[in-house]
Amino acid sequence: MTEFPSPYPMAGLPDRVDIYEVGPRDGLQAEPVLVDPATKIEFIRRLAGCGLRTIEATSFVSPKRVPQLADADQVLTALDLAEPGLRYPVLVPNERGLDRAVAAGARDVAVFVSATERFAAENLGTTRAGAIELAAPVVRRALADGLGVRGYVSMCFGDPWEGSVEPGAVADVVARLAELGVQRFSLGDTIGVGTAGQVAAVLAAVDRAGVGRDRIALHFHDTYGQALANVVAGLAEGITEFDASAGGLGGCPFAKSATGNLATEDLVWLLHGLGYRTGVDLPALAQVSRWLGERMGRAPVSRVVAALTGPAENTRAAR
Amino acid sequence: MTEFPSPYPMAGLPDRVDIYEVGPRDGLQAEPVLVDPATKIEFIRRLAGCGLRTIEATSFVSPKRVPQLADADQVLTALDLAEPGLRYPVLVPNERGLDRAVAAGARDVAVFVSATERFAAENLGTTRAGAIELAAPVVRRALADGLGVRGYVSMCFGDPWEGSVEPGAVADVVARLAELGVQRFSLGDTIGVGTAGQVAAVLAAVDRAGVGRDRIALHFHDTYGQALANVVAGLAEGITEFDASAGGLGGCPFAKSATGNLATEDLVWLLHGLGYRTGVDLPALAQVSRWLGERMGRAPVSRVVAALTGPAENTRAAR
Repeated sequence: MTEFPSPYPMAGLPDRVDIYEVGPRDGLQAEPVLVDPATKIEFIRRLAGCGLRTIEATSFVSPKRVPQLADADQVLTALDLAEPGLRYPVLVPNERGLDRAVAAGARDVAVFVSATERFAAENLGTTRAGAIELAAPVVRRALADGLGVRGYVSMCFGDPWEGSVEPGAVADVVARLAELGVQRFSLGDTIGVGTAGQVAAVLAAVDRAGVGRDRIALHFHDTYGQALANVVAGLAEGITEFDASAGGLGGCPFAKSATGNLATEDLVWLLHGLGYRTGVDLPALAQVSRWLGERMGRAPVSRVVAALTGPAENTRAAR
Repeated sequence: MTEFPSPYPMAGLPDRVDIYEVGPRDGLQAEPVLVDPATKIEFIRRLAGCGLRTIEATSFVSPKRVPQLADADQVLTALDLAEPGLRYPVLVPNERGLDRAVAAGARDVAVFVSATERFAAENLGTTRAGAIELAAPVVRRALADGLGVRGYVSMCFGDPWEGSVEPGAVADVVARLAELGVQRFSLGDTIGVGTAGQVAAVLAAVDRAGVGRDRIALHFHDTYGQALANVVAGLAEGITEFDASAGGLGGCPFAKSATGNLATEDLVWLLHGLGYRTGVDLPALAQVSRWLGERMGRAPVSRVVAALTGPAENTRAAR
């Protein structure tokens, strides 16, 4: 029998697509359950073993602020950061974080800013401009050290306090980060409210920043089930990098929802269906998410994981 | 604050889109829990109260075969079938079913065939051609009685036994049904394996049948999380009718998955985001699905329902 999904390439899409795995960082930082460092290290190794090539490993954030990732140094130093073809970027919120990341051997870092004033205030304790000022020395030093630098822009589609976000606001932030020398950008729909037409609108606005679409990644949350539809819209707009989280790890603390990041497995199913060769062993990846879910006592929210590995015990109980 | 989703129309999409609600029929027939007729009637009335205009109410199938819908006559006769602007189609598997449907006042019926030989054998106990022959007198008599006739074609994207399905096989079945006089067609991805590029391929093949795209509806299951991405692909191809099931009702008996039909709420979120006016009160609809879920002792699988109404008790327990 043919294996699913059957490959049907679609006209007008990019030639290749990269997956940027954020489960160990963005996923785990938002989960209420604390995962021990040995399990995290094993999780990351297994993800790499499934063929994922870029795995954001952790965040060098204050352990008081994000206890879920207090073990950032221990996790990063345990990985083989020199392995060819693999990248383990880390988030660094400030210079102190950059110091720790560099000491642990990081070769790629990411900074984090907000497209909206209110989220900058609530989440980062500063303003939109203040967050960029905070990022500036981090970016400068990271570039001087020869590190790769990614800029996360959060709340690019909607903000829980401000509501709909003007695409122009996203463009402004991307332009400022580009001036600082940030190489690549991840535009996040942090609360998952955006839909397919908005993806095109945000990207059109970002064109104004003079940043090529080959430098833009999209980062969707599946809170309202729109993430994969938005990926299709992004592909149609020529975007070639998408963030995703194994098993859909990562609750969204701002919405009354059990769902978090776009699940890597659901993304891979789409990409294989579109005829892309991702190099990812999808059944193996689903088993990794299932394994971590069992360790954490929660069922992965990914539809593909549920379909490929069968309902978890606790999912079955829930029906 | 702006309400979400923010409307961003997308270039190249149809001017209007219709939702064909299948929860009371396709959804409930696949659920292991039996729902009493009074609850079903109340469910359908509430769906109409939320603004849904086409609601497939039940199936006049053998009660032995589908005990979930043994109350078809009771449910249909309880509805106000003459209410302007509302349609309550019903599935009729054979002439006996048509007799019962007509006696209960049905004005729109649907017949059901398979795009694959194996599913015809396993599910319908006949061949592909045999299923069409079985449908022929039903279609003839329904048309003679002035009823609207829809043709469901199942397994248009993949078959659990045969694997990938040739788009040409779908086109053949649509052509045969069109010859019989079937007015509209619903092409089903019964096991939810299809992806966006395959949607375009199937529709291109169906063009061969000489049936306009304004007569084609798409029917996706969310088993692998692809349903809404496939809707975006269908809209880009000019399709204007999509089947969906309130709360994502309807498990898929052929896959190891907890997920069923595309959830109407997730579809409505997308459509409102694209600027379509569906007339559906989305928060009210989410509450209806939540209410039915509580009656059935299961949490709706719709992401939008979870996000808008909060996690159900049993969902919370599962985390």
